[in-house]
Amino acid sequence: MNVTILSESVIRRAVGAEPAALEAIAEAFVALSAGRVSMPPVIRVDIHAFGGEVDVKTAYIEGLDSFAIKIASGFPGNTARGLPSGSGLMVLMGAETGFLQAALLDNGYLTDLRTGLAGALAARHLAPLQVDTVGVFGSGQQARWQVRCLRLVRDFRRVLVHAQTPANRDRYVAEMQAELGLEVQAVDEPAELVAQSQVVITTTPSRSPWLRAQWLHPGLHITAVGADGEHKQELEAGIVAAADVLACDSRRQCERLGEMRHLPPGGIERVAELGELAAGLRPGRQHEDEVSVCDLTGVGVQDTAIARLCLARATALGLGTPFVD
Amino acid sequence: MNVTILSESVIRRAVGAEPAALEAIAEAFVALSAGRVSMPPVIRVDIHAFGGEVDVKTAYIEGLDSFAIKIASGFPGNTARGLPSGSGLMVLMGAETGFLQAALLDNGYLTDLRTGLAGALAARHLAPLQVDTVGVFGSGQQARWQVRCLRLVRDFRRVLVHAQTPANRDRYVAEMQAELGLEVQAVDEPAELVAQSQVVITTTPSRSPWLRAQWLHPGLHITAVGADGEHKQELEAGIVAAADVLACDSRRQCERLGEMRHLPPGGIERVAELGELAAGLRPGRQHEDEVSVCDLTGVGVQDTAIARLCLARATALGLGTPFVD
Repeated sequence: MNVTILSESVIRRAVGAEPAALEAIAEAFVALSAGRVSMPPVIRVDIHAFGGEVDVKTAYIEGLDSFAIKIASGFPGNTARGLPSGSGLMVLMGAETGFLQAALLDNGYLTDLRTGLAGALAARHLAPLQVDTVGVFGSGQQARWQVRCLRLVRDFRRVLVHAQTPANRDRYVAEMQAELGLEVQAVDEPAELVAQSQVVITTTPSRSPWLRAQWLHPGLHITAVGADGEHKQELEAGIVAAADVLACDSRRQCERLGEMRHLPPGGIERVAELGELAAGLRPGRQHEDEVSVCDLTGVGVQDTAIARLCLARATALGLGTPFVD
Repeated sequence: MNVTILSESVIRRAVGAEPAALEAIAEAFVALSAGRVSMPPVIRVDIHAFGGEVDVKTAYIEGLDSFAIKIASGFPGNTARGLPSGSGLMVLMGAETGFLQAALLDNGYLTDLRTGLAGALAARHLAPLQVDTVGVFGSGQQARWQVRCLRLVRDFRRVLVHAQTPANRDRYVAEMQAELGLEVQAVDEPAELVAQSQVVITTTPSRSPWLRAQWLHPGLHITAVGADGEHKQELEAGIVAAADVLACDSRRQCERLGEMRHLPPGGIERVAELGELAAGLRPGRQHEDEVSVCDLTGVGVQDTAIARLCLARATALGLGTPFVD
């Protein structure tokens, strides 16, 4: 059995927030929306004693010679111990034989990246063309990756951030300002942050809605990343009801696990999937003053796409550890 | 991140068909039946183009510091290419942090072993005490592992085997006779094989029932391993209806995916779980002339138990490859 093991440092060298990765994710969403995918529902195991959960996602895209199975953990309690809350790994299985091809010990890096890239794809089709200010709620990995990946599709001058823990917020400001070379400012009032932003990104694990419908303004695009379970919600139900343009990664999943749960009956029909936007089958934003919302819950095709690209890159670079038994 | 990688050869040295492994599996079933387990439903991804499937199972047993996620593939078409049909791996995740602890690249070995051990646990509580002859349907891995593990709980003199492909059947006879040092014979007539056996083990991937209720005889125990999906069935429905004693690994799963699907309404109530038998909460066989049936579909607690034992053994033996990034 010939297996390649990729460490996190190798994986970080192989793939990042770059155009080729965005195109790989776009292609995966197109395949998903076209029905060329075998993708079972997510499974989740809860570790109540430690307040953690582990999700497993997978998706086979027809015609490809491998597919990923992704194991992602979320243990919010780790943060208090100075450890990252998210971790995990991906494995690539051969589609012809079912044999293990590679184990990507990414500790959650590829999940962070592919989620940021989905946000960039949403913004490509939904954000206004002119974006001056990006507003971010939360100061964790997605608060960073959404902004990094957004630069692939929009130029912007300034990032505003609102986060509950001052120390985390201040670290975000300092680190992202250095990394991006842009103006990054903390904002105390959520309403003010939204008022000043053309793109708003919500990345909190909130269980009750806090983004108010009354804060919507013409030309606003919202990407909601936080809600990915029946128990989570960031946006007031009035927001998805009022938006001019709605999109999501997977209708089937978002009407069960995401913000689209709160649409009025039948409302899911007017929600475009990212794959339909990328394929040109449904329009995205058509006027600069529309309000648009994209709901991301994360789907296995993203994992298959990014893991395959990563292994191909690592192989081409001569990286990775062959594991021969 | 400190991860241990165990190769198949290391895994085979660390754990096998032995009493300690059987007790580990028994404890896991006791925890499952006592409700001390978080175990989501299995997910399956189908690779229609190649007639394969990959299942993912997981279970957290309360109080333990790690749990397994198991990825198991079944690609029957591999056999024609001289490759094993089953493969896969297990990973162990830390229960406190969600971090990856170990990757066990077993290519399906631990699944084969833990499935055989479940059969041994069933036989411990359900088979007659006097077993002269064991009858096996099928000639694959489970046709071997069920017999290997059965020796942990019963002495028997002879193994009869029925299999569709003569070459596979003859290889089974030759190899198992050499391995076990017992009489191993091929039998062409299924009815005759059942008539001569006190324990019958069915390991075929059949989609229609072929074991006839009219073949039942006093003192027979059947362990049905093959059916683990809505589309699979080995036993005529009359068999579970007629049996004096019924057991399974998980009622919730077997009434959906196993032979217990074919019970009359309400019939599932009289099916004991292996964990209830092992804990002494329900009786097993009470008379030598009863007919008993155990239905195995495979549950994640078995994977957690065997993977933990394997890692502990390998660590104690100084085996395994530390993977430090």
